Amino acid sequence: MHSPTQLQEIIENAIPKIVYPAHPADLYEPIRYIMSLGGKRIRPVMVLMATELFTDEINKALDVALAIETFHNFTLVHDDIMDNAPLRRGKQTVHEKWGSNNAILSGDVMMVESNKHLSKVDVNVLKPVLDTFNATAQGVCEGQQLDMEFEQRSDVSIAEYIEMIRLKTAVLLGGAMKLGAIVGGASMADAELLYNFGENLGVAFQLQDDILDVYGNPEKFGKQVGGDIMANKKTFLHLTTLALAPLDEAAPLTSTALAQAEKVSQVTQLYNKYGVKELATTEMDKYLDKAHQALNALAVAEEKKTQFRELVQQIMERDR
Amino acid sequence: MHSPTQLQEIIENAIPKIVYPAHPADLYEPIRYIMSLGGKRIRPVMVLMATELFTDEINKALDVALAIETFHNFTLVHDDIMDNAPLRRGKQTVHEKWGSNNAILSGDVMMVESNKHLSKVDVNVLKPVLDTFNATAQGVCEGQQLDMEFEQRSDVSIAEYIEMIRLKTAVLLGGAMKLGAIVGGASMADAELLYNFGENLGVAFQLQDDILDVYGNPEKFGKQVGGDIMANKKTFLHLTTLALAPLDEAAPLTSTALAQAEKVSQVTQLYNKYGVKELATTEMDKYLDKAHQALNALAVAEEKKTQFRELVQQIMERDR
Repeated sequence: MHSPTQLQEIIENAIPKIVYPAHPADLYEPIRYIMSLGGKRIRPVMVLMATELFTDEINKALDVALAIETFHNFTLVHDDIMDNAPLRRGKQTVHEKWGSNNAILSGDVMMVESNKHLSKVDVNVLKPVLDTFNATAQGVCEGQQLDMEFEQRSDVSIAEYIEMIRLKTAVLLGGAMKLGAIVGGASMADAELLYNFGENLGVAFQLQDDILDVYGNPEKFGKQVGGDIMANKKTFLHLTTLALAPLDEAAPLTSTALAQAEKVSQVTQLYNKYGVKELATTEMDKYLDKAHQALNALAVAEEKKTQFRELVQQIMERDR
Repeated sequence: MHSPTQLQEIIENAIPKIVYPAHPADLYEPIRYIMSLGGKRIRPVMVLMATELFTDEINKALDVALAIETFHNFTLVHDDIMDNAPLRRGKQTVHEKWGSNNAILSGDVMMVESNKHLSKVDVNVLKPVLDTFNATAQGVCEGQQLDMEFEQRSDVSIAEYIEMIRLKTAVLLGGAMKLGAIVGGASMADAELLYNFGENLGVAFQLQDDILDVYGNPEKFGKQVGGDIMANKKTFLHLTTLALAPLDEAAPLTSTALAQAEKVSQVTQLYNKYGVKELATTEMDKYLDKAHQALNALAVAEEKKTQFRELVQQIMERDR
């Protein structure tokens, strides 16, 4: 059995070996660029981990892992256009480097490349693989749409927010797990349990991200602490405070008059007063529990589950 | 056997019955909108025509036909963003109506919807259907990339131009034909012949479009006569004239100083002088011949080919 780190290496080694056509160079160069920017390769690793629960032949799942990583990077390219983001992983975004039109089109062809990877799986699992991938891809698009819409709305409910992060982030982790399971020869029941594991872990992960944005260790958290507050981002903490605090008291949350540091300070005090860190942690633990329940119900040997539990710990202990 | 008109009706009836999720409304409404704008549905009709060469059960191919039409409309949505086009079929483009970000994302989900349609074909043809579709989709993206790049270049060769229109326009007609053939149970040899038929017809069609832009009957041609000339579009006529005329004589081709009507008049005179209409017609006929050769070689009864020959005539006799 491979460790997550070993699986990550397998992915890192496989990515530069993907062959794209040489021409038109400006269509394919952005794909090589974004795919080489790194990241933890968590999604393709999850595919391979799920496969390895059921078979030693993880090579069977490599194409699906690459499909998922390519799809994920495609969403980054298009999301960065929509968000007008200058940087991705500390480097220029594709649309900054090649222009928006080129970025749209390179993204489009990445979707095709994902489907090309997918089509290489054993034909006896091709149909369920496609169905799972398409449902996943559709969910991710819906999540991005909701995220964009929420920026324009002032009445987003906490339930709507959870649904948005489920679609935008968690569905892809669930999908990765389920795809790996299917390719590994899992029963549909086990594949669904792994989907639930991944999806619930994904929601927990995003909620933790909301918490760390405010309460994270600035030296360990990858982003600027307070970034969500400064951007008026409707996180779980933000929406919960809006629901609990009287309207006048909640004013700093959406204020554009306050200096950035002062705003972060006032909003953090408000969060402290209403105990929303604890409420968010309770919500996060609820999803972590669901993830563990799905894992417990899985019909594989206990020792094989250990690695998954360690993965959860690793992911969730980022820097609390 | 159904006539092209009957097949078009089948498509027109099937499109409003496609079920998209209700939410998020702004993600799916643009899909219903663009898919309802009409057009001749030539690509899905070609899918069904190809299928009917080999089986009476054209319903087997309906999902593939809808996949092709959805994909085609997806390319229109994204191309219109890139081209900054205000109108499509006389109506507001999707990005004009919903904004560019929304249009990018609705386009993305249309690609997923295409793949969902595709995944419904008989599992025994699923793999070749996917391979054909993915190769087609990739070619179309490459063609759009080349088309964008050509706008910035002054050294486009005629061979490069033919390759661009092959990718951007013709590959999809070839792909539609081949997909229909595969679903109908054709041999791979016949499927390839139908691909060649569709692709060569596509190149001929685009060359005809270049000719009609200058020499078409203004009352019958769907677009403004002289539109390509006014836009300095590097068509076959434009590039051939550049290759034949001395540099100073060719100046009107790229002039931005001339009034529109004067420019159209001067460039048309130049085209007449160098006989590029005839050269374009000869080139077009070369591709038409290739299309007919592919059709002749096809291992199906002669009477079944008649409809294809009529289709070619219909398409190619738009208004010469």
